[in-house]
Amino acid sequence: MASHYFYGTKLIPDMDLVEQFNDYRSRMNKQILDSDNLLLKRIFNLDTNAYSPGGALDLKSKELIGLTCSLVLRCDDCVKYHLGRCREVGFSTAEVHEAMGVATLIGGTIVIPHLRRAFEFWDALQKSDVSA
Amino acid sequence: MASHYFYGTKLIPDMDLVEQFNDYRSRMNKQILDSDNLLLKRIFNLDTNAYSPGGALDLKSKELIGLTCSLVLRCDDCVKYHLGRCREVGFSTAEVHEAMGVATLIGGTIVIPHLRRAFEFWDALQKSDVSA
Amino acid sequence: MASHYFYGTKLIPDMDLVEQFNDYRSRMNKQILDSDNLLLKRIFNLDTNAYSPGGALDLKSKELIGLTCSLVLRCDDCVKYHLGRCREVGFSTAEVHEAMGVATLIGGTIVIPHLRRAFEFWDALQKSDVSA
Amino acid sequence: MASHYFYGTKLIPDMDLVEQFNDYRSRMNKQILDSDNLLLKRIFNLDTNAYSPGGALDLKSKELIGLTCSLVLRCDDCVKYHLGRCREVGFSTAEVHEAMGVATLIGGTIVIPHLRRAFEFWDALQKSDVSA
Amino acid sequence: MASHYFYGTKLIPDMDLVEQFNDYRSRMNKQILDSDNLLLKRIFNLDTNAYSPGGALDLKSKELIGLTCSLVLRCDDCVKYHLGRCREVGFSTAEVHEAMGVATLIGGTIVIPHLRRAFEFWDALQKSDVSA
Amino acid sequence: MASHYFYGTKLIPDMDLVEQFNDYRSRMNKQILDSDNLLLKRIFNLDTNAYSPGGALDLKSKELIGLTCSLVLRCDDCVKYHLGRCREVGFSTAEVHEAMGVATLIGGTIVIPHLRRAFEFWDALQKSDVSA
Repeated sequence: MASHYFYGTKLIPDMDLVEQFNDYRSRMNKQILDSDNLLLKRIFNLDTNAYSPGGALDLKSKELIGLTCSLVLRCDDCVKYHLGRCREVGFSTAEVHEAMGVATLIGGTIVIPHLRRAFEFWDALQKSDVSA
Repeated sequence: MASHYFYGTKLIPDMDLVEQFNDYRSRMNKQILDSDNLLLKRIFNLDTNAYSPGGALDLKSKELIGLTCSLVLRCDDCVKYHLGRCREVGFSTAEVHEAMGVATLIGGTIVIPHLRRAFEFWDALQKSDVSA
Repeated sequence: MASHYFYGTKLIPDMDLVEQFNDYRSRMNKQILDSDNLLLKRIFNLDTNAYSPGGALDLKSKELIGLTCSLVLRCDDCVKYHLGRCREVGFSTAEVHEAMGVATLIGGTIVIPHLRRAFEFWDALQKSDVSA
Repeated sequence: MASHYFYGTKLIPDMDLVEQFNDYRSRMNKQILDSDNLLLKRIFNLDTNAYSPGGALDLKSKELIGLTCSLVLRCDDCVKYHLGRCREVGFSTAEVHEAMGVATLIGGTIVIPHLRRAFEFWDALQKSDVSA
Repeated sequence: MASHYFYGTKLIPDMDLVEQFNDYRSRMNKQILDSDNLLLKRIFNLDTNAYSPGGALDLKSKELIGLTCSLVLRCDDCVKYHLGRCREVGFSTAEVHEAMGVATLIGGTIVIPHLRRAFEFWDALQKSDVSA
Repeated sequence: MASHYFYGTKLIPDMDLVEQFNDYRSRMNKQILDSDNLLLKRIFNLDTNAYSPGGALDLKSKELIGLTCSLVLRCDDCVKYHLGRCREVGFSTAEVHEAMGVATLIGGTIVIPHLRRAFEFWDALQKSDVSA
C-alpha cells in the first residue's frame, strides 16, 4: 500500500483502507440504530431494502445507480461503500471505470478529486481480504 | 393530456410536452454549437460519445446512469432527455419507476417535485409519436 | 394578484398560485402512488410520518426544518409546500421572514431568486381560501 | 424573437425576456426589502456592495465570478442577472461564451440545460433596449 | 474515546475531537479576519448577528435551522459547530436525533456518512469539558 | 507550519501541505490515465486545454473562474489546485481574498469551513518552494 500523508505527516498503515472504512461504518451505523430514533431506523431499513434482490431491476443495475449517483453527489464514503458492493456483485474494473467516466462527465471536473479517492479505494479492494 | 396551469393561467396545449421539449433543446443546442466556441463544442462531442455504443458498458447501463444521476442532481431537462432515451433503448415503465425510486432514496424527498415532472413526462412519452 | 409574464406573454390568471400548486401536486402524487412501486410508496409514507405529531420535536419545529432545508437546497415546490404548512401550524409572517433570512445567509445569495418566489407564494397564501 | 412554448402552448410574446425578468426581479426585491427583516436587508446590502467598484478586483473580474458561479450552481435567474451586468461592463459575446464553457466543464453536462437558457437570454439582451 | 484510523494508521489521541475542532476553527477564523478583507469581515459579522438573541425567532429555533441546513448541505464542520451550539442552548439528545432524522429524509441517504460523523461529535461533546 | 490534529492526534509534519497535495494528485492522476478509459482520458484532456493560453479569455480570468467555482461547489482539492495556479499566474493575496469573498457571498456561510482550508493552503503556498 502506498504511503499517505495527512497535513504533512507520513502515516504508517497498520490497517488497510477497506478494513478501516468498514470498521468505522459498522461502528457508527450501530450507534445510530441504537439511538432508537424511529425515523432514522426507517430510513436505514429502506436503504437496506432498496439494494436487495427483488423489484424491477437486478442487483447490478441498482449498484450501478448507487455508485454513480454517489459520485455525482460527491460523497466519498458512499462511493467507497458502493465500490465494495460493485465488486461483490461482479462488476469488472473496466465497467467500474466506464461508469465513473460517465458520472464524471455528468458531474463535471469538480468530481475528479473524488474520482482519485475512488480509484485508490477500488485498488485497495482488489488487494483486500476483507470484503472478498 | 391533463390541463396545465402557469401562474394561474389555464394553458390550452397545441404542442405536446415531448415535442415542445425536443423543439427547444434542438434549437438551442444548434445555437450553442453555432457559437464556434471550441470548449463547448468539445463538451458536446464528449457527451454524444459517452452515450454511444461501445466501451465497457452497454447502452442500457449508460442510460440508467444518465437518468438517475440527472434525477439526484435535480435537473428536469436532463431527466426528460434521458427518459426519452430510456424508452428508446427499451426500459419498461416498472424499471424506470424502480430506478427513480432508488435515486429518490439517495437524493432525498427534495427530489420528489422533480419525480412528479418525470412521471408526467414519461406518461407524455407513451402518448407521443415524436420519439417513437 | 400581480400580473405574471412567461417568456414575454402576459398571462391572465384564472386560478391562483396556491390552488394551481396544490392541484398539480395532488394529481401527480396520486399518479406516483398509483404506480405501485414499493420503494416510492415507502418514501412517501416516511415523508408523511416525519411531519406528523409525535417524536421529540413539535410540529412547528419540524416545519421550520422543512422550510429552511428546502430553501437552502433551492427547491421551489418544496418551499411552497412547507410555506403552506408553516401557515397552518401558526407561524407569523415575521417568523417566516426571519427563518428564510437565516437560510439565505447559510445558502448564499444564490438562494435569492428562490426567496422571491417564496415571498410571492407566502403573499398568495394570505389571500387564498384554499389552504385556510 | 423565436416562438416559445410552455406545457404545449404557443405563447405570443408582448414583453421581451429581458423586460419580463427585470420587472419581476425589481418588484419582488422591493417586496423583500419592504418586509423590514434586518437580516435580509443586510444580505441585500452586502450583495450590492460586493459588485460595486472598489476593492482588490475590478468590476469585470467580479462579474465574471458572479456569472460563472451562478452557472455552476445552476441558478437561471442569477445567470440572467449577471449576463445583463456582463454586457453592461463590456464583455464580448466570445468572452461570455468562453467563460460559460469553462463553467460547464467544471459543473458538468448537468449545466447544459442552463447554458441553453443563458444563450437565449444573452441573445435577447443584444436585441433589447431595456438594459442598454 | 474510540480509536481512529486514517489511511490505515491507528491514531492515539492527545486532544479530543471537540477541542481539536474549536482550536482549528478559532485559529483560522482569526486569520481570515486579520486579512482585512471588508467583504469577508461583513459576512462573518452577519453570521454572528444571525444567531444572536433578538429578531422574530428564539435562539433554539435559529440553531435548529443552522444544524439541519448544515446537514442537508453536507458540511461536516458546520454540523459540528451547530451541534456544539445546540447543546449550549439546551437541546436534548432525542431532539437532536429527531432533527437530524428529518434532515436525512429531506437530503437522502447521501447524508448518512455525515450523520455518522455528527453522532460521533455529539457523543464527544457530552464527554468534553471544552464547550460545557 | 502550524500544528495539526486529526481525530485528536497531533501530527508532526515531515512533508508540507503543498508537497503532500501535489504528490497525491500527480500519483492518482497518473493511475486514472493509466486505466486507459477513453472517456476519462478525454475529460482530463479537455480540462488541461481549458486552462491553457488561447481562447477569448486570458489565463488569469480562467483561473479566477476555476478558483471561485471550486469554492462555491465546496471542493477543497479543486480550490487548492487553483490557488496554486492563481499564484503562478500572478494573483496577489488581496485579489485572492477578494475573489474568495465574492464566492463566499454567493455560496453562503456553508462555504466558510472551505475558506478556512483555502486560507491555510494559500499561506502554505507562500512558504513553499514546490510550486514556486
